[in-house]
Amino acid sequence: MSTHSLMVYNSLTRSKEVFQPIHPGHVGMYVCGPTVYNDVHLGNVRSFVSFDVIYRFLKYLGYRVRYVRNITDVGHLLDDGEDRISKRARIEKLEPLEIVQKYTVRFHEMMRIFNNLPPDIEPRATAHIIEQIEMVQQILDNGFAYVSNGSVYFDIQAYLQKHPDYGRLSGRKLEELLAVTREELKGVEDKKHPADFALWMKASPEHIMRWRAPWSVGFPGWHLECSVMSTKYLGDTFDIHGGGNDLKFPHHENEIAQNKAAKGVEPAKYWLHTNMLLMHGRKMSKSEGNTITPYELLSGTSPHISRAYSAMAIRFFFLQSHYRSTVDISDEALQAAARGYRRLMEGIRTAEKLQPHPNASDDTPSPLDDALQQLCDAALREMLDDFNTPRTIATLFELTNRTNALYHGKLPLEDVRPQTIDRVRRTLRDFAFDILGLRDETAASASSKLLTHVMDILLDLRTQARREKNYALADLIRQRLAEVGIQLQDGPDGTTWTTSES
Amino acid sequence: MSTHSLMVYNSLTRSKEVFQPIHPGHVGMYVCGPTVYNDVHLGNVRSFVSFDVIYRFLKYLGYRVRYVRNITDVGHLLDDGEDRISKRARIEKLEPLEIVQKYTVRFHEMMRIFNNLPPDIEPRATAHIIEQIEMVQQILDNGFAYVSNGSVYFDIQAYLQKHPDYGRLSGRKLEELLAVTREELKGVEDKKHPADFALWMKASPEHIMRWRAPWSVGFPGWHLECSVMSTKYLGDTFDIHGGGNDLKFPHHENEIAQNKAAKGVEPAKYWLHTNMLLMHGRKMSKSEGNTITPYELLSGTSPHISRAYSAMAIRFFFLQSHYRSTVDISDEALQAAARGYRRLMEGIRTAEKLQPHPNASDDTPSPLDDALQQLCDAALREMLDDFNTPRTIATLFELTNRTNALYHGKLPLEDVRPQTIDRVRRTLRDFAFDILGLRDETAASASSKLLTHVMDILLDLRTQARREKNYALADLIRQRLAEVGIQLQDGPDGTTWTTSES
Repeated sequence: MSTHSLMVYNSLTRSKEVFQPIHPGHVGMYVCGPTVYNDVHLGNVRSFVSFDVIYRFLKYLGYRVRYVRNITDVGHLLDDGEDRISKRARIEKLEPLEIVQKYTVRFHEMMRIFNNLPPDIEPRATAHIIEQIEMVQQILDNGFAYVSNGSVYFDIQAYLQKHPDYGRLSGRKLEELLAVTREELKGVEDKKHPADFALWMKASPEHIMRWRAPWSVGFPGWHLECSVMSTKYLGDTFDIHGGGNDLKFPHHENEIAQNKAAKGVEPAKYWLHTNMLLMHGRKMSKSEGNTITPYELLSGTSPHISRAYSAMAIRFFFLQSHYRSTVDISDEALQAAARGYRRLMEGIRTAEKLQPHPNASDDTPSPLDDALQQLCDAALREMLDDFNTPRTIATLFELTNRTNALYHGKLPLEDVRPQTIDRVRRTLRDFAFDILGLRDETAASASSKLLTHVMDILLDLRTQARREKNYALADLIRQRLAEVGIQLQDGPDGTTWTTSES
Repeated sequence: MSTHSLMVYNSLTRSKEVFQPIHPGHVGMYVCGPTVYNDVHLGNVRSFVSFDVIYRFLKYLGYRVRYVRNITDVGHLLDDGEDRISKRARIEKLEPLEIVQKYTVRFHEMMRIFNNLPPDIEPRATAHIIEQIEMVQQILDNGFAYVSNGSVYFDIQAYLQKHPDYGRLSGRKLEELLAVTREELKGVEDKKHPADFALWMKASPEHIMRWRAPWSVGFPGWHLECSVMSTKYLGDTFDIHGGGNDLKFPHHENEIAQNKAAKGVEPAKYWLHTNMLLMHGRKMSKSEGNTITPYELLSGTSPHISRAYSAMAIRFFFLQSHYRSTVDISDEALQAAARGYRRLMEGIRTAEKLQPHPNASDDTPSPLDDALQQLCDAALREMLDDFNTPRTIATLFELTNRTNALYHGKLPLEDVRPQTIDRVRRTLRDFAFDILGLRDETAASASSKLLTHVMDILLDLRTQARREKNYALADLIRQRLAEVGIQLQDGPDGTTWTTSES
C-alpha cells in the first residue's frame, strides 16, 4: 500500500522505530480498557479515540489486526455488613455486576457516540480468574513471588536479581520506585518489601467479589489481568501495548515484570502512550474545579463552556493534537474545532460534487495536478509518521481549499486530470471517514434533508416577495423563522440560514 | 398503584396465578439470553421484546426488579488442527472470543434498535466457570451425578428416586423423555443411561475453549450456566424464570433438576414462556425457505416482504399478539401493524394538544368523562391480566379515538373534566412509551421538529394566499412540496401533510 514505512514512537526505547510486526501481515494490539465502576473520563475518551485511529490506520494499511481492549470489572465494593443482623436476601443486597452492567452499557454508548470501532476482543477480568490464578502459580513456581497470610506478593528483590531493568518503561530509578511505593499502605504489613505488589489478595469478610484459589478465597491484584488477557489472546510477545501515560507506572511497569517473571519474555514489542488533557493549560483536577465530563461537553452543562459540542466536533478537536501531546480544553478551542470540523465536512461534500472538465486531458500533469497528487501523498506520509493526525488534517484542509477553488472556478478545472479528481475525492473520504473516524453529522437524517428542501421553497417565496417589494411578507417570514430558531443571513449570493444548534 | 393483583400464567402449574414475589417489593427475573456465535433470530427478538415489556410493567407497578439475562459465550468451536503442522502463532488462529465479541455487539445493537432496556445484570458463561465447577461438585457430593472418563453426567435414575416429578415443566412423561434423549449421540458411550446429560465435558484435543477442573480439562454442559448464574444473582429460589417455549425441554427441565440436585429447592416460583413465530401460518424453517431475519425485516431485503419495516412497527406488530400466542408474519399483517403504530403515535400527539374546555366543570362526571376514566382503568387491568398487550393496545386506540373526536369537536369537550384529560394523556404516554416501550420515531429528531415548524409557516402562507384568492401561489406551494415528496391534504379542519416515507 505504501513505499514508506510506518514509524511508531516506542515508549520503551524512547525513540521512533520502524514498525515491524512479529508475524508478517498480522498486528496484535492490546489497550488497557475502562474500569466500569463509574463513568469514563474525558481523558479516557481521548485515549480511546487515539487508539481507535491507530487501529483504523493499521487496517487501512492492510494489516489483519486483532485489537484487544479489556473491561476491568473486578470491583472493590464492600458489603455494608448489615447482612449478619438483618439476614437480607441476596436480591436485596448490593450486587457488583449491577454496577458493572450499568457502566459498561454507558461506556459502550459513549464509544459509539464518538464513533470508536469496537475492539475485536473485549475480555473481562472476572472471566479470567482461572487464568490469573494459573499465572500467579507460574510466578510462584519461578521464584518471583511469595505467599503471606493468604495473599501472594510479587518479590521485587528477587526479580531485580534476574531483571535489573525494572523501571525501564517509566524511566524511574529504583530508589524512586521504592520511595513511591513506600506510600502504599494496603497490605503493607504482609509484604517483605514496600515495593512488592499484590498478585492475589485474600478477601476481607466484607469484600463482595471473591473466588477460591490455592492461597485463600480472594481476588486478583489489579496489574495481573492485563498480563493474563493480553498474552492469552495475542501470544506471549505481541506487537503493540497501549494506554494512557498515567498507566506507565505502576501498572505497565508491573505488567512487564509479571510477564517476564511468568514467561521469561517481554510482553510487547512497542509501547504506545497517549498524553493527558489539560483545561486552560492546567491539569484537570477535582480539587481545582477545572474538570469536565464527556456528558457535560455533549450536553453543554458545564460552567466551562458556552454551549454543547457534538461528538464529532470533540473528536476532531482531539485529533487536531498529536496523541503524544497534551490537549488543552477551552471553550474557544472547542468552538474553533467545531467550525473546522464543519468546514472539512462541507469541503468533502463539495469535492464529491466536483466533475472532471470536458477538456481535461489525461496527458502530462499540470503543476496544479502535481500539487494535488502530492497533497494526497502527504496525507498518507503524515499518518505513517507516528500517526500524525494534526498534520494529516492540515493536509486535508489544503485539499478541500483547492477543490473548493476548483468547484467555484477560482482554479482551472481543465488543468486537473480525471484520475486526480478521483484520487482527491478518495483521499478525502478515506482519511476523514475511514481513518480519522469522523462522521458527517449534518448530512445524516432524512428529515434534515427534507428541511433543507422546504427551506429552499420558503426562501424562494421570500426572495419573490422582496423582488415584488412586499417587504412586510419578507419580514414576516424572517420573524416567524426566528421564532423557531432559524436565523437568515441575506448576502450577495442569496440568503443562507443557520439554526441555533449548529 | 393498583387495587387489582397481577396475574401471571405459570408454565409449571399450567394456570394463572396471583403474582406474589418472594421478597415483598422486590422481583428477581432471569431470562435465557442469546448464544453469541451467530446473529439473533427474529423469534428471539420477539421473546426479548415480550420480557422487556414484562420488565417495564413490573417496574411501572413499583417493584424493584433485578432482571438478569445471560450471554452464552462458551463456544463449541473446534481448532482446525493445522497447528501441529504449521506451528501457527496464536494471533493467526481462530479465537472464539472474536466471534463472541462480533455477535455480542450486534446483539446489543439489535436490542437497542428495538428499544429493549438492557437487563440489570448480563452475566457471561465464561465468567462463571469456577462457580459452575463448584455446582458440579455439589451435585456429585449429593449423589446425583457420576464421573465417567473425565466427564461428569447428571444421573437421572438417581434423581428420579428422590424427585419423581422430573418432566413436570415440559409435561413430558418419563418414557417420552427417555425416548427423546436416546437419540442424543454425544458422549453416549460414557453415560450410564441415555437420559443422563452432561454437567462437565472433557475437551477433545481440538476443542478450543477449555478450563482445568478436578475431573478433566474441559468445559461445562449447556444447561449448567443458567442454574449457576440465576441463583448466584437472585438467590436459590427466585421469582420469575423466562424463556422461549422451545427451551422448556431439555434446557429448563434440566435446569430445575440441577438446581434441586445441588440445593434441594425449586429455582423459580413462576416460569413464563413465550410462543413461537410463524410465517404464513407455518413454522419458520430453513428447509422450507420461509424464514426471515431481523436485518431483512429492517432493510426490506427479503422476498417475503414488499418493503422495509421500522423497528417500532415490528415491535408494535409483536405486541398486538399476546406473548403466549404465536405471531404469524406476513407482509399484509406487517403493513397493517405499521399503519396501526403510526395511527397510535398520531393519536398520542393529538391528545397532547388537547386543552380542557374553559366551561368544563370539576363537578359530577358526565357519562363521557366516566367512559374515559374506565378506559384508563381498563388499560391497566389488561396488563395486570398476564401482560395482555393486544387488549391494552385496543384500549389505547379507544382512548385516541375519543381524544381525536374531542380535539376535532365531534365529542363535547366541555363534558370532560380537566383532571380526566390529564389522566388520559398520562395513560397514553405511560402505556405506549414506558410500558409497551414504543418510541415515537417520526417525532424523534431535532430536524424533524424544525421541519414541522417550517411546514407550519409555509402552510400558513398558503392558507393566506387561498384566502386572498391567490390560487396560483397556493398551487405553486403544493406543487413544489410534491416535488420533494410532501403531499398536502386540504380538509375542513385545515391542511395536513404527509411524506412519502411515512
